[in-house]
Order: sequence, then structure tokens, then C-alpha cells
Amino acid sequence: MYAITIPEPGGPEALVWNEVPDPVPGEGEVLVEVVASAVNRADIMQRQGYYDPPPGASPYPGLECSGRIAALGPGVSGWSVGDEVCALLAGGGYAEKVAVPAGQLMPVPEGLDLKQAAALPEVACTVWSNVFMIAHLHPGETLLVHGGSSGIGTMAIQLGKAVGARVAVTAGTKEKLDFCAELGADILVNYREQDFVAEVKQATDGAGADVILDNMGAKYLDRNVQALAVNGRLAIIGMQGGVKGELNIGALLGKRAAISATSLRARPLAEKAAIAAAVREHVWPLITQGHVRPVVDRELPMAEAAQAHRVVEASEHIGKVLLVAP
Amino acid sequence: MYAITIPEPGGPEALVWNEVPDPVPGEGEVLVEVVASAVNRADIMQRQGYYDPPPGASPYPGLECSGRIAALGPGVSGWSVGDEVCALLAGGGYAEKVAVPAGQLMPVPEGLDLKQAAALPEVACTVWSNVFMIAHLHPGETLLVHGGSSGIGTMAIQLGKAVGARVAVTAGTKEKLDFCAELGADILVNYREQDFVAEVKQATDGAGADVILDNMGAKYLDRNVQALAVNGRLAIIGMQGGVKGELNIGALLGKRAAISATSLRARPLAEKAAIAAAVREHVWPLITQGHVRPVVDRELPMAEAAQAHRVVEASEHIGKVLLVAP
Repeated sequence: MYAITIPEPGGPEALVWNEVPDPVPGEGEVLVEVVASAVNRADIMQRQGYYDPPPGASPYPGLECSGRIAALGPGVSGWSVGDEVCALLAGGGYAEKVAVPAGQLMPVPEGLDLKQAAALPEVACTVWSNVFMIAHLHPGETLLVHGGSSGIGTMAIQLGKAVGARVAVTAGTKEKLDFCAELGADILVNYREQDFVAEVKQATDGAGADVILDNMGAKYLDRNVQALAVNGRLAIIGMQGGVKGELNIGALLGKRAAISATSLRARPLAEKAAIAAAVREHVWPLITQGHVRPVVDRELPMAEAAQAHRVVEASEHIGKVLLVAP
Repeated sequence: MYAITIPEPGGPEALVWNEVPDPVPGEGEVLVEVVASAVNRADIMQRQGYYDPPPGASPYPGLECSGRIAALGPGVSGWSVGDEVCALLAGGGYAEKVAVPAGQLMPVPEGLDLKQAAALPEVACTVWSNVFMIAHLHPGETLLVHGGSSGIGTMAIQLGKAVGARVAVTAGTKEKLDFCAELGADILVNYREQDFVAEVKQATDGAGADVILDNMGAKYLDRNVQALAVNGRLAIIGMQGGVKGELNIGALLGKRAAISATSLRARPLAEKAAIAAAVREHVWPLITQGHVRPVVDRELPMAEAAQAHRVVEASEHIGKVLLVAP
């Protein structure tokens, strides 16, 4: 088969479409013939040499895909050759085939195009596990989503609205904020021109956000704590603004607030399977009913992954950038 | 009645035993004739002028007491005059009488002396709400308790052991560590001579602590994050080591860990009542069965509260220092 390989870490040109051996599904795994994958920031870090795949994972980038089951490894039940699926991957999505632990498979939500389903696994599993399983967003609460127009952001807005929360977003352009509003966002903050702490406080009569989904890490840490409401929960899923920041414990304690930080990729299989099962139970029906949809910015041929990375690195996109297998 | 008043903030001598008006129980409150109160660090901060009572609370110090119900305010049911109780207070425990919202009352655990029960409300409610309701300590997990010989620490050790966890403690003297061991602590760390990160890692085959109960705040923040296990939960309940500290978000994220920070005193009545109800359900039977006991360092007459504060400020004590009403 062909896959995007990284012979040497570097810029987008480091991604090379090469012929490589087919993966062989191990115990409890299935072989998926990939229809599409999608770009995640972690892929860019992996390409740059900063984020090695976990032990045992495919060396090729790609943390999610959609496709058809081509073969079952030993000990797999409940799935059949030919099933249309999407999957959370520990790597290897930028390829014509990938071996996946069966627990990380999800059916394609009823009514959704197989290719579009490649846009779902990372955003649905990340948002559901953080905003709902960890931070327990409740109806009537306020959710602040940083990077509202990202793949994660567009899913968080829709899921927040679907459960009856009020949703605030930050983004860097009017076009992106307009799109967030179309998805249902109630409070729009242009982070280039406005202070999200002041805006969120003003829009909530001084209360602040009950849950914050953050991809910035250190750069926003202090302001996120300021923006939290009493009993607020800050869920950090990325560190685009740095790794180490000053925490005002007094402010956190005064609000009886909490901070969590997680990543999906390194979780053990059992945890990924539990998240995938919860997503299938709670998110898929919302997609089938039309309340939530994958937001796809554009599709590019998988062999042109370098161009897809350029788009994501320049933050030109809204939603997910798909890579379509030949 | 008489109460300890604070005419001017300052050292222990600022505590003055004065005649003051009797409190009048309001809607939903009862009047308790105090048998004993106990010293908390927050009382010392209040005496120093750094921790004003929340709006509506008694101006006198004292966050807990035991005693007998002397009168019922309007709208109170389920309690009778003469009932022996202990209570979580928003203030006013250093007095002969105190008015308490009924939701903050707890019966005296069966078999326990009424005076000793004054040592329970703060430690039982703080440990149960943090270690169990927020951090969800599970059997087989490792709990690290900083200040193992404090009132909070002695309760945390016993409750951790009672649910089948492994308990590590830090303390500053061999005598204090020996006492923690008598209460059941498995891993003993003298923080003056040893590094608790290294000791806890070594004792857990490198895994670290699943839950940490911390009273130090900033000073221990970075090392607490280092000492956490994967999926670890750091529960901060005090800031004796400072308010602002550097948080390594990367380390937190790599462990999928979480930090919470809370205080009991500022919680709304409904939350205090929910905690008191949970403590009554889960902790009181362990006391009646003899698995858990209040640890009392010494008893002093309430009028000698200044001396009690000196003992606690010098960290000479193990467990709680009681103040006995005349």
C-alpha cells in the first residue's frame, strides 16, 4: 500500500507518499481500507519531530479515519468485513490501510456520508470525553470554547447547544466568528480585539464560564482561571500557547474550581473504547437527527498531505481538513 | 453570653473573652449551647485580619462545635431541643452559644463523647468532600496526605485506610510520623529530610499517588504534579506555602491529571448540607464501628483560646486542639 511517511522530521515537505508494507491486524484488531483521514495538530507536531507515536503505534501520521473493514484479526467479534466504520487511531491514518483495535471502531452515524465520517472521531471523542465525561457540562451552564472555528471548536459549539448550554467562543476573524454564530454560539469574542475574560463576564452578569475547553495552555491559564465561574471546570486539551504558566491557586480555591488536562492519543485501549462507546451512544443520535454535523473545510488527496498541513498551520481553515485516499 | 472576640486583629493576644449579646436563630436555624469548639488554621488567619467571615456569618471565630440544641428557629424540622449535635459553622464557634443553619447539623456519632465530637465536623467534611466526593479515591489506590499529623491529616489517613487505599504521609518529625503509622499510614516521609516525590514514586514502583490532599498550595504545586500518577487527582485545600505557583501543564496533560481547589467555609448552605449528609452516611458508621476516631491533641478552656492558637501556630500538636466552653 501507499502511506504518508516522514523520512526526516521537518516542514510540510517532510511528508512523503511512499509505498510501504501493508499492516497486519493483530489480536483484537481489524484491518480498515481507508476512505479518508483528517489533519490534527498532533500530526504537525509529529511531522516536526516533537511528538513520537506511542509504543506499538503505526509510524505514519493520522489519528482518525473512515473506511471499510477489509479483514478481521484473531478474537474480533461484533464487526464484519465490509462494514463501514470510522475510527480513533494511535497513528497510521494517512495511509491506504490501517490496523485498528476493535474498541476504537465506531459505526458511521446513520445518514452520514462515509468520507465525511473521517472528520468525526477525534473531535467527537475529545469534546465528549472532556466537556461531558470530565467537566460534566449541564444544561443552562455556560461553555467557553477557545478556537471556536477549529474542528474541535465546531463540534464543541454544536454539542454544547444540543444539551442546552450557553456557548461562548473565541476566534481570530469576523468570518470565523460568523460561522460559530451559524452553528449556534451565543457569545462571540474576537481574541485579537477583545478580552475574553471581560466579554464572558459581561455576558454572564459577572458569573463567568462554568466549563472552558482550552487548547492554549500556559498563555491562557491565568485568564482562564479569571474567566471561570464558581464551581467552574477548565479542561485543557492543547498547549499551543506554551507548557508552563503561573497558576493563581488562591483564585482557583476562591471559586472551588478545577483544572483537568488530557490527551486522547496516549490513553490505554480500554479508556479509548469507553469513550468511543459513549460517543456512539450520546453523539451519534444527535448527528442522525441533524442537530450536530461534521464541519469540513476542504478535502485534499491524501498524497497532498503537505498542502493540508500548510492550510492548518496557517489557520486558514474552518472545521476539519480531510485527506482522501486514492 | 461570653464569646472570643477580636477587637483588633493581631497575635494570639488579640483573642479576648468578652460578654456579647446572645445569637438569635433565624429562619431554618437552631441555637446550639456549645460544649466545645476546635481550632482551625482559618481561625488564625481571621485573627490576623486576613480572612473576614463571609457575609451574614458570626463575627467571632470558630468553624465547628459540638453541643446541645437550646432552641429551634422558625421552619426547622427533624431536630429537637436537647439533641446532642455537632456542626459545621461559618463562624461563631468560640462562644457559649451559636446559631446554625439546620443543614449544617450532624448528630453525634453513636458511642462518641459529646465533647470529642467537636473535633469532627471540619476534618470529616473537608476530607470526605475532597478525597471522596471530588477526587473519588478508590480501593487499591494510593493517597498522599501532606501534614499527616494535622487534624485533617489524621482523618484522611483513617478514611483512606478504611476504604482500602494505601496511604502515604508527610510530616516534620519522627514522633508525628510514628503517630501516622499507628493510624495506619503505609508510607512515611519526613519532609525535612526526604523528597516526597522520590519516596512516593519508589514506594509505588514509579507509579505515583492517585490522589494527593494538599494544604501547601504554591510551594508544593510542581512537586505534587510530579508525584501524581496517571489519572491522578490533586486536591488543594490550603495555601500555607503560598498562593501563586508555576504549573507544568505538559506534565499534567501527560498524566491526564486534574487539580481541584476548594474551601468549605464559603460554600452555599445547600452544598454544606449535602456534604454533611454524605459524612453522616459514610463516615459516622466508621466511627461507631471503631474504624475511625477523632484525634484530639489537647483540650483548653475556651477563654484560653490564645494559648490554643500558639500551640497550633507552632505546629506542636497532633490532631485537633479543642476549646471547651465553661
